[in-house]
Amino acid sequence: MVDLDLDRREVTVARRDRAVVREGFDQLVYATGAEAVVPPVPGAEAVEPVRTVDSAERFRAELLNGHRASSAVVVGGSYLGLEMAEALLERGMSVTLLDRADQLMTTLDPDMAGDVRAAAEDRGIRVLLGVEIEEIRRHTDGRARSVKLAGEELEADHVVLSTGVRPAVALAEAAGLEIGPSGAVAVDDHQRCLGADGVFAAGDCAESWHRLLERPVNVQLGTHANKQGRVAGTNVAGGEATFPGLIGTAVSKICRCEVARTGLSEREAAGADLDVVSASVDSKTRAGYYPGTGPIRVKLVADATSGRLLGGQIVGVEGAAKRIDVLAACVWSGMAVDELEMLDLSYAPPFSGVYDPLLVAARATHRAVREAA
Amino acid sequence: MVDLDLDRREVTVARRDRAVVREGFDQLVYATGAEAVVPPVPGAEAVEPVRTVDSAERFRAELLNGHRASSAVVVGGSYLGLEMAEALLERGMSVTLLDRADQLMTTLDPDMAGDVRAAAEDRGIRVLLGVEIEEIRRHTDGRARSVKLAGEELEADHVVLSTGVRPAVALAEAAGLEIGPSGAVAVDDHQRCLGADGVFAAGDCAESWHRLLERPVNVQLGTHANKQGRVAGTNVAGGEATFPGLIGTAVSKICRCEVARTGLSEREAAGADLDVVSASVDSKTRAGYYPGTGPIRVKLVADATSGRLLGGQIVGVEGAAKRIDVLAACVWSGMAVDELEMLDLSYAPPFSGVYDPLLVAARATHRAVREAA
Repeated sequence: MVDLDLDRREVTVARRDRAVVREGFDQLVYATGAEAVVPPVPGAEAVEPVRTVDSAERFRAELLNGHRASSAVVVGGSYLGLEMAEALLERGMSVTLLDRADQLMTTLDPDMAGDVRAAAEDRGIRVLLGVEIEEIRRHTDGRARSVKLAGEELEADHVVLSTGVRPAVALAEAAGLEIGPSGAVAVDDHQRCLGADGVFAAGDCAESWHRLLERPVNVQLGTHANKQGRVAGTNVAGGEATFPGLIGTAVSKICRCEVARTGLSEREAAGADLDVVSASVDSKTRAGYYPGTGPIRVKLVADATSGRLLGGQIVGVEGAAKRIDVLAACVWSGMAVDELEMLDLSYAPPFSGVYDPLLVAARATHRAVREAA
Repeated sequence: MVDLDLDRREVTVARRDRAVVREGFDQLVYATGAEAVVPPVPGAEAVEPVRTVDSAERFRAELLNGHRASSAVVVGGSYLGLEMAEALLERGMSVTLLDRADQLMTTLDPDMAGDVRAAAEDRGIRVLLGVEIEEIRRHTDGRARSVKLAGEELEADHVVLSTGVRPAVALAEAAGLEIGPSGAVAVDDHQRCLGADGVFAAGDCAESWHRLLERPVNVQLGTHANKQGRVAGTNVAGGEATFPGLIGTAVSKICRCEVARTGLSEREAAGADLDVVSASVDSKTRAGYYPGTGPIRVKLVADATSGRLLGGQIVGVEGAAKRIDVLAACVWSGMAVDELEMLDLSYAPPFSGVYDPLLVAARATHRAVREAA
């Protein structure tokens, strides 16, 4: 048990050995991270989230005790659910992946997410979308389980819940720290908690400024947590540092498929009432004749009037996804697609065609902007 | 023989069959490319440059006719010389690579080029730097040759000259087109030849605007040639397009080593009387524990006062070099290193550490800017 008293500037920790430790502070960094979200259905609370190294070790031990040809149901089709499904598949298990959304990876637009689904299915994962779980049942042998859906019941030796995380703010709320609209601790660009002098928050428990949406969001990624921790630490130690916000960049490797996104998807732009156009192109990661070349699809989203690049999504083979960082730099600096189209990007046959797929996508999006005018 | 008469707006071609073809024009695109530079030493003129597909085929036939354990001397340590040296090595030949400069790849600063030399030598190429050729001798058997240096004579079954190209401007000069300070045809941003209405030039034969040096240069790369051809063609056809210039981006894969650069090197910045600072960092291409991770070195060059990023160089293993495009986007848009340090780049273990090597390099360079203040 931990108690935080902002007025007395004191943290009280009741340890397991019942000793009570009080620690006063001049400045405090609140960095409690996030906690797993469990779906509100009967039986879900009995499934241990794979959230810590300890819980992962326990889950691995459970897998090693099982018979080889076992089965698993993974609930949640975002990148961690997909990574878990692939990892279980590689252990020789038969794997079903569920999501209540109509697509995997809702951070992508549906057209791009379709490629991820195809990659997962090609790999041998059974994908069920648009399904709601009604109950998770534990069989009498204590290990095997079943997952009940409307109209179907899936038997499985193992069930994994990968249904997201939420900021761990219970202590902050109890102490009276301001919680922002995203549900995370509200901070300014110095990671200072609003209205609480000398108190900082950083990482998954804190809000981040979204530079395109122009509002605070809660994005739980290691990159932001690291930067924010550095900013908070610098300021606590008397230095001066600010976190400039984020634009929603993320990358993942799933089922031999590289997936990346930055900025706003079409759906996010629509949700923010932005008038955008988009274009997708299918290209190759390397020169067409070069060994190891393979498909890459790039989708760009741009402001319909100014042509400013607002977002990008990439799905493809080895060598595809890290290109997202180029788009991130362009989105960040406010570049328009007609400027991106002529950007001096590198070319050699092992790395791209003469026109990098990003340039081809920029040209197509520039055309869409002209046609929308 | 081709003759170009700008006043009569006519091209005359004397064909091999002695027929003479005259072709009038309203608009003309001059796109003659570049031609190999041959070192001005006795015997060099007898070595056929490997410049066209036909000449490459002839060279390959010569190699196939030779006995297996043959030897080659490659003159010129830029990327094509290195690629040629590696290709010959892969055919089982013993290869010596010469350059009169004190380093390979003079587009890189010496510290970064040292890594390329190490990679070439590790691969088994003998590298001799700072040497001048005095003569290339053909032995009496007509095939084997020797390359005479001051104090050493290298015997070789094959000699390859990879000593650069120059713009093919003889026809342009004869016709009275303006040749710019770089030795290539002078053009404006529409690829229009200066002072010659309706005449365009594009590609290796034409100048390009260097956005950082703010003067025309001649850079012979397929990316610029392609873009300029598209711009010239659009304008000839009555459209409107401009070439925005270049910043010196290039990438190559040599001896399993990826090499890339953009913007200005320290040497180029010094040559342009710019006051810069630089920093290099050694990092990993992927998370430290991830299979396939390996070394990447990133060097950044920034304006000493404003911290504006002026250039970057990368040497590393698979996955290293295409990151140069992120730096290219940042250089292009005028981003400062303190902004790059906090840029929202992607992270997942197969692709980078939590802090991408570019961010680590930006932090080191930001520190160098502060220390220079």
